[in-house]
Amino acid sequence: MNLDHIKPDAWKIVEDHYYPDRIEAAESLFSLANGAMGQRANFEEHYSGKSFRGSYLAGVYYPDKTKVGWWKNGYPEYFAKVLNAPNWIGIDVICNKEIVDLNTATVHEFRRELDMQNGLLTRKVTLSTLKGVKLTITSERFLALFQEELGCIRYTVALHDQAAEITLAPYIDAHISNNDSNWDDPFWEHKDQFCKDSFAALHTKTNKSAFDVCTYQSVSFFVDGNKSVAFSCEEKPGRVAFVHTKQLAAGQKVMVVKTGGYCSSLQQPQSNQQNHVYDIAVNALKQGFDELLQSQQKQWDEVWRMADITIEGDVKAQQGIRFNIFHLNQTYTGKNPLLNIGPKGFTGEKYGGSTYWDTEAFCFPFYMATKDESVAKNLLNYRYKHLDKAMENASKLGFSDGAALYPMVTMNGEECHNEWEITFEEIHRNAAIAYAVFAYERYTGKSDYLIERGIDVLVGIARFWAQRVSFSTAKNQYVILGVTGPNEYENNVNNNWYTNYAAKWCLNYTASRLDKIKDENPSEHEAILNRLNIHEEEHTQWKHIANNIYLSFDKNRGVYLQQDGFLDKELKDTSAISRDELPINQHWSWDRILRSPYIKQADVLQGFYFFEDHFTKEQLKKNFDFYEPFTVHESSLSPSIHAVLATTLGRVEQAYKFYLQTSRLDLDDYNAEVGEGLHITSMAGTWLSVVEGFGGMRIKDNAIHFSPKLPDAWDSLSFKINFRGAILQLTVDKETSQVSQISGDPVAVFLNGNLVKPSHKPVFS
Amino acid sequence: MNLDHIKPDAWKIVEDHYYPDRIEAAESLFSLANGAMGQRANFEEHYSGKSFRGSYLAGVYYPDKTKVGWWKNGYPEYFAKVLNAPNWIGIDVICNKEIVDLNTATVHEFRRELDMQNGLLTRKVTLSTLKGVKLTITSERFLALFQEELGCIRYTVALHDQAAEITLAPYIDAHISNNDSNWDDPFWEHKDQFCKDSFAALHTKTNKSAFDVCTYQSVSFFVDGNKSVAFSCEEKPGRVAFVHTKQLAAGQKVMVVKTGGYCSSLQQPQSNQQNHVYDIAVNALKQGFDELLQSQQKQWDEVWRMADITIEGDVKAQQGIRFNIFHLNQTYTGKNPLLNIGPKGFTGEKYGGSTYWDTEAFCFPFYMATKDESVAKNLLNYRYKHLDKAMENASKLGFSDGAALYPMVTMNGEECHNEWEITFEEIHRNAAIAYAVFAYERYTGKSDYLIERGIDVLVGIARFWAQRVSFSTAKNQYVILGVTGPNEYENNVNNNWYTNYAAKWCLNYTASRLDKIKDENPSEHEAILNRLNIHEEEHTQWKHIANNIYLSFDKNRGVYLQQDGFLDKELKDTSAISRDELPINQHWSWDRILRSPYIKQADVLQGFYFFEDHFTKEQLKKNFDFYEPFTVHESSLSPSIHAVLATTLGRVEQAYKFYLQTSRLDLDDYNAEVGEGLHITSMAGTWLSVVEGFGGMRIKDNAIHFSPKLPDAWDSLSFKINFRGAILQLTVDKETSQVSQISGDPVAVFLNGNLVKPSHKPVFS
Repeated sequence: MNLDHIKPDAWKIVEDHYYPDRIEAAESLFSLANGAMGQRANFEEHYSGKSFRGSYLAGVYYPDKTKVGWWKNGYPEYFAKVLNAPNWIGIDVICNKEIVDLNTATVHEFRRELDMQNGLLTRKVTLSTLKGVKLTITSERFLALFQEELGCIRYTVALHDQAAEITLAPYIDAHISNNDSNWDDPFWEHKDQFCKDSFAALHTKTNKSAFDVCTYQSVSFFVDGNKSVAFSCEEKPGRVAFVHTKQLAAGQKVMVVKTGGYCSSLQQPQSNQQNHVYDIAVNALKQGFDELLQSQQKQWDEVWRMADITIEGDVKAQQGIRFNIFHLNQTYTGKNPLLNIGPKGFTGEKYGGSTYWDTEAFCFPFYMATKDESVAKNLLNYRYKHLDKAMENASKLGFSDGAALYPMVTMNGEECHNEWEITFEEIHRNAAIAYAVFAYERYTGKSDYLIERGIDVLVGIARFWAQRVSFSTAKNQYVILGVTGPNEYENNVNNNWYTNYAAKWCLNYTASRLDKIKDENPSEHEAILNRLNIHEEEHTQWKHIANNIYLSFDKNRGVYLQQDGFLDKELKDTSAISRDELPINQHWSWDRILRSPYIKQADVLQGFYFFEDHFTKEQLKKNFDFYEPFTVHESSLSPSIHAVLATTLGRVEQAYKFYLQTSRLDLDDYNAEVGEGLHITSMAGTWLSVVEGFGGMRIKDNAIHFSPKLPDAWDSLSFKINFRGAILQLTVDKETSQVSQISGDPVAVFLNGNLVKPSHKPVFS
Repeated sequence: MNLDHIKPDAWKIVEDHYYPDRIEAAESLFSLANGAMGQRANFEEHYSGKSFRGSYLAGVYYPDKTKVGWWKNGYPEYFAKVLNAPNWIGIDVICNKEIVDLNTATVHEFRRELDMQNGLLTRKVTLSTLKGVKLTITSERFLALFQEELGCIRYTVALHDQAAEITLAPYIDAHISNNDSNWDDPFWEHKDQFCKDSFAALHTKTNKSAFDVCTYQSVSFFVDGNKSVAFSCEEKPGRVAFVHTKQLAAGQKVMVVKTGGYCSSLQQPQSNQQNHVYDIAVNALKQGFDELLQSQQKQWDEVWRMADITIEGDVKAQQGIRFNIFHLNQTYTGKNPLLNIGPKGFTGEKYGGSTYWDTEAFCFPFYMATKDESVAKNLLNYRYKHLDKAMENASKLGFSDGAALYPMVTMNGEECHNEWEITFEEIHRNAAIAYAVFAYERYTGKSDYLIERGIDVLVGIARFWAQRVSFSTAKNQYVILGVTGPNEYENNVNNNWYTNYAAKWCLNYTASRLDKIKDENPSEHEAILNRLNIHEEEHTQWKHIANNIYLSFDKNRGVYLQQDGFLDKELKDTSAISRDELPINQHWSWDRILRSPYIKQADVLQGFYFFEDHFTKEQLKKNFDFYEPFTVHESSLSPSIHAVLATTLGRVEQAYKFYLQTSRLDLDDYNAEVGEGLHITSMAGTWLSVVEGFGGMRIKDNAIHFSPKLPDAWDSLSFKINFRGAILQLTVDKETSQVSQISGDPVAVFLNGNLVKPSHKPVFS
């Protein structure tokens, strides 16, 4: 860990030295994406040092079928792996026949900036080659928010006090490797390539999953600002380069503007891909880099106008929250209902598939509150479209009659993770998917989605729970045996309180929504009963189970038990762990973790977070004080939930500590693993910790509530929320707090428990 | 399943028709081995039909390093896979330029016999080739018990009423495939080959594990009984054939005698392998097939004189028990302390590594009672030699100070299975290893092994348990959290009664042996304390834990609970499972199996089996009647233990049903999987069910006890036991039972509870 690696700055991520040891970390931190494609901040030019090259395409994956151990019935067909796509950013720089390579050069100056306000990555390096030629490279790069297949690079090499022959050779290349491959199996097959004038394309297909991808580039060269057309096309199988060589005098500079990127078969049929990107590339080059950048800035401006959070007096906290908001917006734009939010976004390969419960449990409120309603609805539609596959998945596991079990990890609705304790047992994910339907209803006050689609999802989930419980004669209650809760440091436990409580809630909520629809819209209700083949007894059975589900409670301590037998553990808090054994998941064997009391992330407390209104503060306090001391927060999703709960308990400074852990997890590389990629979904947790934590935002009874509590380190906090068509802004400083309404019709707003009439502000002043 | 596939016969396994659908099953059932090498009963000649070719070398394996899922700390370096070795048995037969292939020929007659009395596999086939030439192939094959590198084949082709050109081309071939390979990775590298006169050798090396193996053959050809020297050597890389072609008249026959086999780097250094097998091959050919077969018969005669069990009146039972005894003797001879008993022996690839707890828990008594004492001692020495590696293994999992955890699956003392619920949690295996030390002591009455070596193993194991327990404040007792018991249909449970009880026993036994040594041999005791660095407090602590370990008991039912929470399950017995869902491990998803009450194999009852004397028959009855109805017996190790316990309860006919299940498991292919290989270790369970079940044999207080109970279907039962240097024979018929002493000094023998003076019989009359 190198805590001063990244310089504090309110709007930028800045590296002001060349840190060869932090290359992979920086490649993650400075990643660019636009929701459809994204890539690590690899250098354009050749780099022979340690580096993790990665460029990723939304929804495109490799299905690994390797079998080890004793295969279990019900395992999915494949284990999905995110794959590194052909390289479109490459630019070879050759100076007097010597390839320019930061790893062998003498680097005099180095500065890299990720301008989050404008979505622009820049790098300026002054170096001397091995042969002693001094030059300055300036690179500017962005992935267009306004055109998902388009990336743009402006790359300049300027000579200092010496003449030299400089070749710039921008290329596209399908010879790439995948860190996540077993035995270096190739993930791609090269099919075809094309080169004409200043445009080149490669056609590749993923092995086994058969996604067609067209990778392209189009280039213009300039010498001292004047267009230079003397370049050639050099082709090898799977690689096309445009080679521009010029003898330059001292002080001269050569530049290439390169547009490039991908078009996958998720976007266009293979036969149309090349024409599609050709038009994009040619138009883009015609506009030129500056004009394209203006469009990019305009789009990011729109994002920030709504999503920005300002924190004064604490530049690291400010930088942290913007970093997180920036990456959330890079990862998911809500435009394509086939896509979702991967835990590492477009910044690394780990964790294979794209969608986890993280989306509904952590990310959903962020997109709901900072985007148009349609974005959150697209997230709901994603699961609705996968309902049939969730039913198939449940049926593979022996459930029937329309029971749905959503996958733990998925690319397209199919389960694609194969560890039984996760795949088969971490079933609480089903509850998070129902909870998002509830969150949408509560937030928007609308029941249209519920009636048209959401109820189908809820009924599938309720049917799953009704079959998944079993009746314990010993307890005379329903139990849920053999699960993994949110705390994945326990596997195959019985009666995980969170799972049981969430199942109870799902059954009740589904039954209550059917009742409500019946009251308000009997004919719609009739239609739903027919469509989903719901009988009266089934409905009654759901309520019966919900009322009789076992919820383990320890009267002495006044706490719910994380699972049966939790109190049999050696209940020593985390201070008993030797510091050099942290994180325990990197130091302890799995059985030791399992039998310890240590908690990876909020589990019982996740239930208190979701169902806050069901419990008193006294109950929260007892459970928080019992469980938090055992919590090692080794999931990136943990500190944020604890930050929200701590503010609820009025413990603002404790919450602030959790906030720092979550907001700068990647920037400060707390878990010494940022080189593998960023923790994208936990970034939404950071947003929750500010908005629901320090901002105290809640939606209750068709009103929005704020109960702000500012940490000592902050002078002020301000953010906007899009609530039922109204845009509200909360501004808090050391003395006062205030809600302004920026646009929309009046809505009910409570500040610190009092109904307030927000002052109106001019729209986007 | 084809229940009349194998013909009943007291001494032979017989197939009297050509069953193309049962080829793979027969390849398993007719397997040959000699403890050092073995192979499936593949045809010598080319066969284009469905077949599973396999030839295996003791101790030679491939280390698979594939990673999937989320890698856990403490996982072993590799997952060992048994590998198919180069083919030495091949003989191409070409008739009028047409390759002879049973799959395309018209088969008129077919008979295959495995003569278990003599360890000889014969096959006689009369067929017409596609071109209409009728011929009879006779093949005889054995793997020499007297020379572990030697296999012998006599192979004859006889023409009927038509002349033809017949080529016999015996070959050795390294181009083989491995069923168990991911993505068809090659397991072998071909290094070199050699051919001179009638001898040929191939030198190969296993990939990654780097075992050198020399595969060889040496041949003599005969036409109508006269030696024929007109043959040539045909070499391709990795393949050497001797080609003998002759125009034969109608009624003539051509024969090849082929000796061959392997020498691995476990037997000889690479540089010496070829010379070593050359001498063996040349000498063998000089002796000729008949003389070699006589030596083989002599050795098997010695095996059977001691190990045979005769059952009169029930030829299928007789065939079943001999089949099992035969394969146990083929699999393990006790000569090489580096080797052990693999669950599939030399008959298939599944289950990777060679040694499981099966050896100590099931096989040990068989070898102890039917072999020289040195054989069982070699099994103990195998674990003693691996003590350091067991300590390393424990230390990887966070245990310290000499705690030893023996691997669940091993080739050479290292753990080589990588599923956490097995590798890390199925720790009861440690108790079985201690139990074998106890069994040896009880059986032989000797403490030499204990003092010299066994105590080291016991102390390592006791230290493991002392660290593996944790103290539950809630229960005010020691608990063992997070284990998998013998019933692998439960994972990561708390307080598995069997594990807790076995741990208690290990701690007590270790402490008591130290006490005993102190009493009887204080200086030896002193030496042990020093050697193992044992302190008084440690010793005290073991007893303290043993006295305070939690053993869950249900007072209402009078049964020990398999694990915490067992009574929360839906306690429906196995009759509630639909027949078409059996075996559940082929039909149910893993989570469904886990939350069901169904038991794969004896678990609580395994404890009653091991520690019979600690419980009353009434207790056994209650526990048997509670657990057996939930038991699906889907481990081959299950019915035998239940057979023993049922006879103890006087339920002879129920025991007989279990006996049939265990003794003919493979012959009648109960689990429809015999094609993958035989269940070798469960064959020892069959022996237990006869000797300890129907024979009622026990060792108690330095005496041997028999309490025979004959099933109705049997007229008589007779077997021999080697007890403390005396060979005793129990003979039971419908009226009487009798123990004779065949050799050795008098020993204390109880028959049906009464001390008897066995009548003497002439030695091996």
